[in-house]
Amino acid sequence: MSNPSAAILVIGDEILSGRTRDSNLHYLSCELTKIGIYLQEARLVQDKAAEIVDAVKWLSSKYDYLFTSGGIGPTHDDITADCIAEAFGAEINVREDAFKLLQKYYLSQNIDFNNSRQRMARIPNDAKLIENPISVAPGFQLENVFVMAGVPNIFQSMVQSILPSLKSGKPLLSKSVKIPRGEGEIAANLKKIASNHKNVSIGSYPYNNQGKFGTNIVVRGTNSDELDVVAKILMSTLL
Amino acid sequence: MSNPSAAILVIGDEILSGRTRDSNLHYLSCELTKIGIYLQEARLVQDKAAEIVDAVKWLSSKYDYLFTSGGIGPTHDDITADCIAEAFGAEINVREDAFKLLQKYYLSQNIDFNNSRQRMARIPNDAKLIENPISVAPGFQLENVFVMAGVPNIFQSMVQSILPSLKSGKPLLSKSVKIPRGEGEIAANLKKIASNHKNVSIGSYPYNNQGKFGTNIVVRGTNSDELDVVAKILMSTLL
Repeated sequence: MSNPSAAILVIGDEILSGRTRDSNLHYLSCELTKIGIYLQEARLVQDKAAEIVDAVKWLSSKYDYLFTSGGIGPTHDDITADCIAEAFGAEINVREDAFKLLQKYYLSQNIDFNNSRQRMARIPNDAKLIENPISVAPGFQLENVFVMAGVPNIFQSMVQSILPSLKSGKPLLSKSVKIPRGEGEIAANLKKIASNHKNVSIGSYPYNNQGKFGTNIVVRGTNSDELDVVAKILMSTLL
Repeated sequence: MSNPSAAILVIGDEILSGRTRDSNLHYLSCELTKIGIYLQEARLVQDKAAEIVDAVKWLSSKYDYLFTSGGIGPTHDDITADCIAEAFGAEINVREDAFKLLQKYYLSQNIDFNNSRQRMARIPNDAKLIENPISVAPGFQLENVFVMAGVPNIFQSMVQSILPSLKSGKPLLSKSVKIPRGEGEIAANLKKIASNHKNVSIGSYPYNNQGKFGTNIVVRGTNSDELDVVAKILMSTLL
Protein backbone atom coordinates (compact mmCIF):
# COMPACT_ATOMS: atom_id res chain seq x y z
CA MET A 1 0.00 0.00 0.00
CA SER A 2 1.63 3.26 -1.10
CA ASN A 3 -0.70 5.49 0.87
CA PRO A 4 1.12 7.67 3.42
CA SER A 5 0.65 6.88 7.11
CA ALA A 6 -0.13 9.30 9.90
CA ALA A 7 -0.72 9.68 13.63
CA ILE A 8 -2.36 12.36 15.72
CA LEU A 9 -1.26 13.51 19.16
CA VAL A 10 -3.95 15.32 21.14
CA ILE A 11 -2.39 17.37 23.94
CA GLY A 12 -4.30 18.54 26.99
CA ASP A 13 -5.61 17.58 30.42
CA GLU A 14 -9.15 18.64 29.59
CA ILE A 15 -9.89 15.67 27.35
CA LEU A 16 -8.48 13.02 29.67
CA SER A 17 -10.39 14.48 32.62
CA GLY A 18 -13.65 14.22 30.69
CA ARG A 19 -14.25 17.97 30.78
CA THR A 20 -14.11 18.24 26.99
CA ARG A 21 -14.97 15.66 24.41
CA ASP A 22 -12.38 15.57 21.65
CA SER A 23 -13.56 16.40 18.18
CA ASN A 24 -10.24 17.08 16.45
CA LEU A 25 -9.31 13.42 16.11
CA HIS A 26 -12.59 12.62 14.41
CA TYR A 27 -12.36 15.65 12.12
CA LEU A 28 -8.79 14.87 11.07
CA SER A 29 -9.51 11.18 10.48
CA CYS A 30 -12.32 12.05 8.04
CA GLU A 31 -10.22 14.62 6.16
CA LEU A 32 -7.20 12.31 5.84
CA THR A 33 -9.30 9.37 4.70
CA LYS A 34 -10.65 11.50 1.81
CA ILE A 35 -7.16 12.19 0.48
CA GLY A 36 -5.76 8.73 1.02
CA ILE A 37 -3.66 9.22 4.13
CA TYR A 38 -4.04 6.39 6.64
CA LEU A 39 -4.46 7.57 10.22
CA GLN A 40 -2.95 4.59 12.01
CA GLU A 41 -2.63 5.71 15.60
CA ALA A 42 -3.86 8.36 17.99
CA ARG A 43 -2.54 9.32 21.38
CA LEU A 44 -3.88 11.69 23.99
CA VAL A 45 -1.48 12.95 26.63
CA GLN A 46 -1.55 15.47 29.44
CA ASP A 47 0.18 18.86 29.41
CA LYS A 48 3.43 17.30 30.65
CA ALA A 49 6.65 18.00 28.79
CA ALA A 50 8.23 14.54 29.12
CA GLU A 51 5.09 12.82 27.84
CA ILE A 52 4.74 15.16 24.88
CA VAL A 53 8.41 14.95 23.89
CA ASP A 54 8.44 11.13 24.05
CA ALA A 55 5.24 10.80 22.03
CA VAL A 56 6.47 13.25 19.37
CA LYS A 57 9.78 11.43 18.96
CA TRP A 58 8.10 8.05 18.69
CA LEU A 59 5.18 8.93 16.44
CA SER A 60 7.14 11.21 14.08
CA SER A 61 9.70 8.50 13.44
CA LYS A 62 7.13 5.74 12.98
CA TYR A 63 4.68 7.43 10.60
CA ASP A 64 4.99 9.63 7.51
CA TYR A 65 3.10 12.47 9.20
CA LEU A 66 2.32 13.50 12.74
CA PHE A 67 -0.39 16.05 13.51
CA THR A 68 -0.69 17.61 16.95
CA SER A 69 -3.59 19.47 18.50
CA GLY A 70 -3.48 21.76 21.53
CA GLY A 71 -1.09 23.62 23.78
CA ILE A 72 0.00 26.55 21.58
CA GLY A 73 -1.75 29.42 23.37
CA PRO A 74 -0.32 32.10 25.69
CA THR A 75 -0.84 30.49 29.12
CA HIS A 76 1.41 28.53 31.49
CA ASP A 77 -0.06 25.18 30.35
CA ASP A 78 0.82 25.84 26.69
CA ILE A 79 4.11 24.03 26.25
CA THR A 80 3.73 22.25 22.91
CA ALA A 81 6.06 24.46 20.82
CA ASP A 82 8.94 24.05 23.27
CA CYS A 83 8.35 20.30 23.44
CA ILE A 84 8.44 19.94 19.67
CA ALA A 85 11.71 21.89 19.56
CA GLU A 86 13.15 19.64 22.26
CA ALA A 87 12.04 16.48 20.45
CA PHE A 88 13.99 17.55 17.33
CA GLY A 89 16.87 19.30 19.09
CA ALA A 90 15.81 22.52 17.36
CA GLU A 91 16.38 26.04 18.69
CA ILE A 92 13.31 27.96 19.67
CA ASN A 93 12.86 31.69 20.21
CA VAL A 94 10.40 34.46 19.57
CA ARG A 95 10.54 34.53 15.79
CA GLU A 96 10.31 37.78 13.87
CA ASP A 97 7.81 36.63 11.24
CA ALA A 98 5.36 35.30 13.83
CA PHE A 99 6.00 38.31 16.07
CA LYS A 100 5.12 40.74 13.28
CA LEU A 101 1.94 38.88 12.37
CA LEU A 102 0.74 38.99 15.95
CA GLN A 103 1.88 42.56 16.57
CA LYS A 104 -0.02 43.78 13.52
CA TYR A 105 -3.17 41.94 14.58
CA TYR A 106 -3.19 43.14 18.19
CA LEU A 107 -2.42 46.71 17.08
CA SER A 108 -5.38 46.61 14.69
CA GLN A 109 -7.62 45.35 17.50
CA ASN A 110 -6.29 47.91 19.93
CA ILE A 111 -5.20 45.09 22.26
CA ASP A 112 -1.99 45.17 24.29
CA PHE A 113 0.64 42.90 22.70
CA ASN A 114 2.05 41.88 26.08
CA ASN A 115 4.67 39.30 27.06
CA SER A 116 2.18 36.45 27.32
CA ARG A 117 0.88 37.09 23.81
CA GLN A 118 4.45 37.42 22.53
CA ARG A 119 5.05 33.85 23.77
CA MET A 120 2.82 32.70 20.94
CA ALA A 121 5.55 33.87 18.56
CA ARG A 122 7.91 31.27 20.01
CA ILE A 123 8.41 29.04 16.97
CA PRO A 124 11.33 26.66 16.35
CA ASN A 125 13.94 27.82 13.85
CA ASP A 126 13.37 26.39 10.36
CA ALA A 127 9.72 25.61 11.09
CA LYS A 128 7.19 26.77 8.51
CA LEU A 129 4.24 28.76 9.85
CA ILE A 130 0.68 27.45 9.52
CA GLU A 131 -1.85 30.20 9.00
CA ASN A 132 -4.54 30.86 11.61
CA PRO A 133 -7.33 32.88 9.98
CA ILE A 134 -9.35 33.02 13.19
CA SER A 135 -7.10 34.25 15.99
CA VAL A 136 -3.85 34.79 14.02
CA ALA A 137 -1.44 32.96 16.42
CA PRO A 138 0.16 30.54 13.95
CA GLY A 139 0.73 26.83 14.08
CA PHE A 140 3.86 25.45 12.45
CA GLN A 141 5.39 22.54 10.61
CA LEU A 142 8.76 21.17 11.71
CA GLU A 143 10.07 18.14 9.80
CA ASN A 144 7.03 15.85 9.36
CA VAL A 145 5.13 17.28 12.35
CA PHE A 146 2.23 19.71 11.97
CA VAL A 147 1.52 21.61 15.17
CA MET A 148 -1.98 23.04 15.41
CA ALA A 149 -4.35 24.67 17.89
CA GLY A 150 -6.73 22.70 20.08
CA VAL A 151 -9.76 24.97 19.69
CA PRO A 152 -11.83 23.01 17.16
CA ASN A 153 -12.65 25.75 14.64
CA ILE A 154 -9.03 26.92 14.58
CA PHE A 155 -7.76 23.34 14.31
CA GLN A 156 -10.12 22.74 11.39
CA SER A 157 -9.04 25.84 9.50
CA MET A 158 -5.38 24.94 10.01
CA VAL A 159 -6.03 21.42 8.70
CA GLN A 160 -7.69 22.87 5.62
CA SER A 161 -4.68 25.10 4.96
CA ILE A 162 -2.13 22.27 5.17
CA LEU A 163 -4.06 19.56 3.28
CA PRO A 164 -2.91 20.73 -0.18
CA SER A 165 0.74 20.45 0.88
CA LEU A 166 0.49 16.83 2.01
CA LYS A 167 1.59 13.92 -0.13
CA SER A 168 -1.73 12.19 -0.64
CA GLY A 169 -2.51 8.67 -1.72
CA LYS A 170 -5.37 7.08 -3.56
CA PRO A 171 -8.52 8.08 -1.67
CA LEU A 172 -9.54 5.44 0.85
CA LEU A 173 -12.98 4.32 -0.21
CA SER A 174 -15.44 2.31 1.79
CA LYS A 175 -18.60 0.42 1.14
CA SER A 176 -20.99 -0.72 3.86
CA VAL A 177 -23.20 -3.77 3.75
CA LYS A 178 -25.89 -4.24 6.39
CA ILE A 179 -26.61 -7.86 7.26
CA PRO A 180 -29.59 -8.52 9.55
CA ARG A 181 -27.84 -11.43 11.26
CA GLY A 182 -25.63 -11.54 14.32
CA GLU A 183 -21.85 -11.45 13.97
CA GLY A 184 -21.50 -14.95 15.34
CA GLU A 185 -23.67 -16.37 12.58
CA ILE A 186 -21.69 -14.87 9.71
CA ALA A 187 -18.19 -14.86 11.23
CA ALA A 188 -16.93 -18.06 9.59
CA ASN A 189 -17.94 -17.02 6.07
CA LEU A 190 -16.75 -13.51 6.67
CA LYS A 191 -13.32 -14.77 7.65
CA LYS A 192 -13.05 -16.76 4.41
CA ILE A 193 -14.08 -13.76 2.31
CA ALA A 194 -11.58 -11.56 4.14
CA SER A 195 -8.75 -14.01 3.58
CA ASN A 196 -9.63 -14.24 -0.14
CA HIS A 197 -9.49 -10.45 -0.55
CA LYS A 198 -6.35 -9.21 1.14
CA ASN A 199 -6.30 -5.94 -0.80
CA VAL A 200 -9.29 -4.66 1.12
CA SER A 201 -9.83 -4.47 4.84
CA ILE A 202 -13.10 -5.86 6.10
CA GLY A 203 -14.43 -4.66 9.44
CA SER A 204 -17.42 -6.07 11.22
CA TYR A 205 -19.56 -3.92 13.53
CA PRO A 206 -22.42 -5.46 15.45
CA TYR A 207 -25.56 -3.49 16.09
CA ASN A 208 -28.58 -4.10 18.29
CA ASN A 209 -31.76 -2.36 17.20
CA GLN A 210 -34.41 -2.88 19.85
CA GLY A 211 -33.32 -6.43 20.51
CA LYS A 212 -32.61 -7.33 16.87
CA PHE A 213 -28.95 -8.17 16.40
CA GLY A 214 -27.30 -7.44 13.08
CA THR A 215 -23.94 -6.60 11.56
CA ASN A 216 -22.63 -3.70 9.55
CA ILE A 217 -19.74 -4.82 7.41
CA VAL A 218 -17.42 -2.15 6.10
CA VAL A 219 -15.08 -2.89 3.21
CA ARG A 220 -12.25 -0.40 2.78
CA GLY A 221 -9.69 -0.06 0.03
CA THR A 222 -8.54 2.13 -2.83
CA ASN A 223 -10.04 0.27 -5.79
CA SER A 224 -13.75 0.95 -6.17
CA ASP A 225 -14.31 -1.97 -8.58
CA GLU A 226 -12.87 -4.34 -6.02
CA LEU A 227 -15.08 -2.88 -3.29
CA ASP A 228 -18.12 -3.51 -5.48
CA VAL A 229 -17.07 -7.10 -6.13
CA VAL A 230 -16.49 -7.82 -2.44
CA ALA A 231 -19.76 -6.14 -1.44
CA LYS A 232 -21.64 -8.38 -3.90
CA ILE A 233 -19.93 -11.49 -2.56
CA LEU A 234 -20.78 -10.43 1.01
CA MET A 235 -24.42 -9.97 0.14
CA SER A 236 -24.80 -13.19 -1.83
CA THR A 237 -22.97 -15.21 0.83
CA LEU A 238 -24.24 -13.72 4.06
CA LEU A 239 -27.77 -12.49 3.43
CA MET B 1 -0.76 12.42 44.89
CA SER B 2 -2.06 9.06 46.08
CA ASN B 3 -4.78 8.78 43.45
CA PRO B 4 -4.34 5.74 41.19
CA SER B 5 -3.36 6.35 37.56
CA ALA B 6 -4.91 4.81 34.47
CA ALA B 7 -4.78 4.62 30.69
CA ILE B 8 -7.28 3.50 28.07
CA LEU B 9 -6.48 1.64 24.87
CA VAL B 10 -9.19 1.87 22.22
CA ILE B 11 -8.80 -0.91 19.65
CA GLY B 12 -10.31 -0.79 16.18
CA ASP B 13 -9.88 0.51 12.64
CA GLU B 14 -13.32 2.10 12.62
CA ILE B 15 -12.39 5.00 14.87
CA LEU B 16 -9.13 5.87 13.13
CA SER B 17 -10.84 5.79 9.74
CA GLY B 18 -13.45 8.28 10.93
CA ARG B 19 -16.31 5.84 10.42
CA THR B 20 -17.21 5.87 14.11
CA ARG B 21 -16.69 8.59 16.65
CA ASP B 22 -15.34 7.18 19.87
CA SER B 23 -17.50 7.61 22.94
CA ASN B 24 -15.91 5.06 25.28
CA LEU B 25 -12.92 7.23 26.11
CA HIS B 26 -15.14 10.11 27.12
CA TYR B 27 -17.45 7.88 29.15
CA LEU B 28 -14.59 6.20 31.00
CA SER B 29 -12.81 9.49 31.73
CA CYS B 30 -15.93 10.88 33.42
CA GLU B 31 -16.50 7.74 35.49
CA LEU B 32 -12.88 7.51 36.64
CA THR B 33 -12.72 11.18 37.56
CA LYS B 34 -15.71 10.71 39.90
CA ILE B 35 -13.93 8.00 41.90
CA GLY B 36 -10.53 9.64 41.96
CA ILE B 37 -8.65 7.65 39.34
CA TYR B 38 -6.54 9.81 37.04
CA LEU B 39 -6.85 8.91 33.37
CA GLN B 40 -3.41 10.02 32.21
CA GLU B 41 -3.12 8.68 28.68
CA ALA B 42 -5.25 7.29 25.87
CA ARG B 43 -4.18 5.43 22.78
CA LEU B 44 -6.14 4.34 19.75
CA VAL B 45 -4.66 1.60 17.59
CA GLN B 46 -5.77 -0.49 14.65
CA ASP B 47 -6.76 -4.16 14.76
CA LYS B 48 -3.10 -5.22 14.40
CA ALA B 49 -1.63 -7.69 16.84
CA ALA B 50 1.85 -6.16 17.15
CA GLU B 51 0.42 -2.71 17.85
CA ILE B 52 -1.99 -3.99 20.46
CA VAL B 53 0.59 -6.15 22.23
CA ASP B 54 3.14 -3.32 22.40
CA ALA B 55 0.61 -0.83 23.70
CA VAL B 56 -0.69 -3.25 26.35
CA LYS B 57 2.82 -4.01 27.61
CA TRP B 58 3.76 -0.36 27.80
CA LEU B 59 0.58 1.07 29.29
CA SER B 60 0.00 -1.72 31.82
CA SER B 61 3.48 -1.32 33.22
CA LYS B 62 3.34 2.48 33.33
CA TYR B 63 -0.05 3.01 34.99
CA ASP B 64 -1.94 1.41 37.88
CA TYR B 65 -4.80 0.38 35.59
CA LEU B 66 -5.28 -0.17 31.88
CA PHE B 67 -8.73 -0.37 30.35
CA THR B 68 -9.23 -1.63 26.80
CA SER B 69 -12.22 -1.25 24.52
CA GLY B 70 -12.99 -3.29 21.41
CA GLY B 71 -12.00 -6.45 19.58
CA ILE B 72 -13.58 -9.18 21.73
CA GLY B 73 -16.36 -10.34 19.36
CA PRO B 74 -16.58 -13.49 17.21
CA THR B 75 -15.18 -12.18 13.90
CA HIS B 76 -11.76 -12.38 12.24
CA ASP B 77 -10.87 -8.83 13.29
CA ASP B 78 -11.45 -9.59 16.99
CA ILE B 79 -7.96 -10.34 18.27
CA THR B 80 -7.79 -8.51 21.57
CA ALA B 81 -7.99 -11.52 23.94
CA ASP B 82 -5.12 -13.29 22.20
CA CYS B 83 -3.05 -10.10 22.21
CA ILE B 84 -3.57 -9.58 25.94
CA ALA B 85 -2.49 -13.18 26.59
CA GLU B 86 0.60 -12.64 24.46
CA ALA B 87 1.48 -9.40 26.24
CA PHE B 88 1.52 -11.21 29.60
CA GLY B 89 2.85 -14.56 28.37
CA ALA B 90 -0.40 -16.17 29.56
CA GLU B 91 -2.02 -19.28 28.10
CA ILE B 92 -5.29 -18.80 26.32
CA ASN B 93 -7.94 -21.34 25.41
CA VAL B 94 -11.68 -21.76 25.28
CA ARG B 95 -12.42 -21.61 28.98
CA GLU B 96 -15.10 -23.71 30.55
CA ASP B 97 -16.74 -21.02 32.66
CA ALA B 98 -17.09 -18.65 29.72
CA PHE B 99 -18.11 -21.51 27.43
CA LYS B 100 -20.95 -22.52 29.77
CA LEU B 101 -22.23 -18.96 30.11
CA LEU B 102 -22.39 -18.55 26.35
CA GLN B 103 -23.79 -22.03 25.72
CA LYS B 104 -26.61 -21.46 28.18
CA TYR B 105 -27.45 -18.09 26.62
CA TYR B 106 -27.49 -19.30 23.00
CA LEU B 107 -29.49 -22.37 23.96
CA SER B 108 -32.10 -20.18 25.66
CA GLN B 109 -32.26 -17.99 22.55
CA ASN B 110 -32.48 -20.99 20.25
CA ILE B 111 -29.35 -19.76 18.45
CA ASP B 112 -26.65 -22.09 17.14
CA PHE B 113 -23.58 -21.96 19.42
CA ASN B 114 -21.18 -22.38 16.54
CA ASN B 115 -17.39 -22.25 16.34
CA SER B 116 -17.28 -18.49 15.79
CA ARG B 117 -19.38 -17.85 18.87
CA GLN B 118 -17.27 -20.32 20.87
CA ARG B 119 -14.25 -18.16 20.08
CA MET B 120 -15.72 -15.58 22.46
CA ALA B 121 -15.01 -18.05 25.27
CA ARG B 122 -11.28 -17.76 24.56
CA ILE B 123 -10.11 -16.18 27.82
CA PRO B 124 -6.57 -16.24 29.24
CA ASN B 125 -5.98 -18.63 32.15
CA ASP B 126 -6.22 -16.88 35.54
CA ALA B 127 -8.18 -13.98 34.10
CA LYS B 128 -11.34 -12.97 35.97
CA LEU B 129 -14.49 -12.65 33.87
CA ILE B 130 -16.28 -9.32 33.52
CA GLU B 131 -20.03 -9.68 33.27
CA ASN B 132 -21.86 -8.64 30.08
CA PRO B 133 -25.55 -8.20 30.92
CA ILE B 134 -26.41 -7.25 27.34
CA SER B 135 -24.99 -9.87 24.99
CA VAL B 136 -23.40 -12.22 27.56
CA ALA B 137 -19.95 -12.62 25.91
CA PRO B 138 -17.73 -11.65 28.85
CA GLY B 139 -14.86 -9.25 29.13
CA PHE B 140 -12.04 -10.13 31.51
CA GLN B 141 -9.42 -8.80 33.88
CA LEU B 142 -5.84 -10.07 33.64
CA GLU B 143 -3.33 -8.51 36.05
CA ASN B 144 -4.13 -4.76 36.00
CA VAL B 145 -5.79 -4.82 32.56
CA PHE B 146 -9.57 -4.72 32.11
CA VAL B 147 -10.65 -5.93 28.68
CA MET B 148 -14.07 -4.75 27.58
CA ALA B 149 -16.30 -4.63 24.53
CA GLY B 150 -16.27 -1.76 22.02
CA VAL B 151 -20.04 -1.44 21.57
CA PRO B 152 -20.81 1.58 23.76
CA ASN B 153 -23.73 0.25 25.79
CA ILE B 154 -21.89 -2.99 26.54
CA PHE B 155 -18.69 -1.09 27.37
CA GLN B 156 -20.63 1.12 29.75
CA SER B 157 -22.29 -1.76 31.57
CA MET B 158 -18.93 -3.51 31.93
CA VAL B 159 -17.38 -0.34 33.35
CA GLN B 160 -20.20 -0.09 35.88
CA SER B 161 -19.62 -3.67 36.98
CA ILE B 162 -15.87 -3.23 37.56
CA LEU B 163 -15.90 0.21 39.19
CA PRO B 164 -16.60 -1.14 42.73
CA SER B 165 -13.54 -3.41 42.50
CA LEU B 166 -11.09 -0.61 41.66
CA LYS B 167 -8.87 1.03 44.22
CA SER B 168 -10.24 4.54 44.14
CA GLY B 169 -8.73 7.79 45.34
CA LYS B 170 -10.14 11.01 46.64
CA PRO B 171 -12.67 12.18 44.05
CA LEU B 172 -11.14 14.62 41.59
CA LEU B 173 -13.12 17.80 41.96
CA SER B 174 -13.16 20.76 39.65
CA LYS B 175 -14.34 24.31 39.76
CA SER B 176 -14.73 26.51 36.70
CA VAL B 177 -14.37 30.25 36.56
CA LYS B 178 -15.43 32.15 33.46
CA ILE B 179 -13.40 35.26 32.75
CA PRO B 180 -14.63 37.53 29.95
CA ARG B 181 -11.09 38.43 28.90
CA GLY B 182 -8.74 36.82 26.41
CA GLU B 183 -6.15 34.32 27.57
CA GLY B 184 -3.30 36.60 26.59
CA GLU B 185 -4.54 39.32 28.93
CA ILE B 186 -4.70 37.13 32.01
CA ALA B 187 -1.86 34.71 31.29
CA ALA B 188 0.81 36.42 33.42
CA ASN B 189 -1.38 36.59 36.55
CA LEU B 190 -2.69 33.10 35.93
CA LYS B 191 0.84 31.74 35.82
CA LYS B 192 1.63 33.32 39.20
CA ILE B 193 -1.53 31.91 40.77
CA ALA B 194 -0.77 28.47 39.33
CA SER B 195 2.77 28.49 40.69
CA ASN B 196 1.48 29.55 44.13
CA HIS B 197 -0.98 26.63 44.27
CA LYS B 198 0.85 23.51 43.18
CA ASN B 199 -1.69 21.18 44.83
CA VAL B 200 -4.28 22.04 42.21
CA SER B 201 -3.99 21.93 38.45
CA ILE B 202 -5.18 25.03 36.64
CA GLY B 203 -6.21 24.71 33.01
CA SER B 204 -7.07 27.60 30.74
CA TYR B 205 -9.52 27.17 27.86
CA PRO B 206 -10.18 30.05 25.49
CA TYR B 207 -13.62 30.59 24.02
CA ASN B 208 -14.94 32.84 21.30
CA ASN B 209 -18.61 33.71 21.54
CA GLN B 210 -19.62 35.63 18.44
CA GLY B 211 -16.36 37.53 18.32
CA LYS B 212 -16.05 38.04 22.10
CA PHE B 213 -12.94 36.31 23.41
CA GLY B 214 -12.94 34.93 26.91
CA THR B 215 -11.38 32.21 29.03
CA ASN B 216 -12.76 29.35 31.05
CA ILE B 217 -10.40 28.48 33.84
CA VAL B 218 -10.75 25.06 35.41
CA VAL B 219 -9.18 24.33 38.78
CA ARG B 220 -8.85 20.64 39.62
CA GLY B 221 -7.82 18.91 42.81
CA THR B 222 -9.04 16.75 45.65
CA ASN B 223 -9.54 19.39 48.37
CA SER B 224 -12.75 21.34 47.89
CA ASP B 225 -11.77 24.09 50.34
CA GLU B 226 -8.62 24.71 48.36
CA LEU B 227 -10.57 24.84 45.11
CA ASP B 228 -12.85 27.49 46.65
CA VAL B 229 -9.87 29.54 47.79
CA VAL B 230 -8.19 29.41 44.39
CA ALA B 231 -11.44 30.21 42.57
CA LYS B 232 -11.87 33.32 44.74
CA ILE B 233 -8.30 34.41 44.05
CA LEU B 234 -8.84 33.89 40.32
CA MET B 235 -11.97 36.02 40.33
CA SER B 236 -10.55 38.82 42.42
CA THR B 237 -7.32 38.95 40.41
CA LEU B 238 -8.53 38.38 36.86
CA LEU B 239 -12.05 39.81 36.62
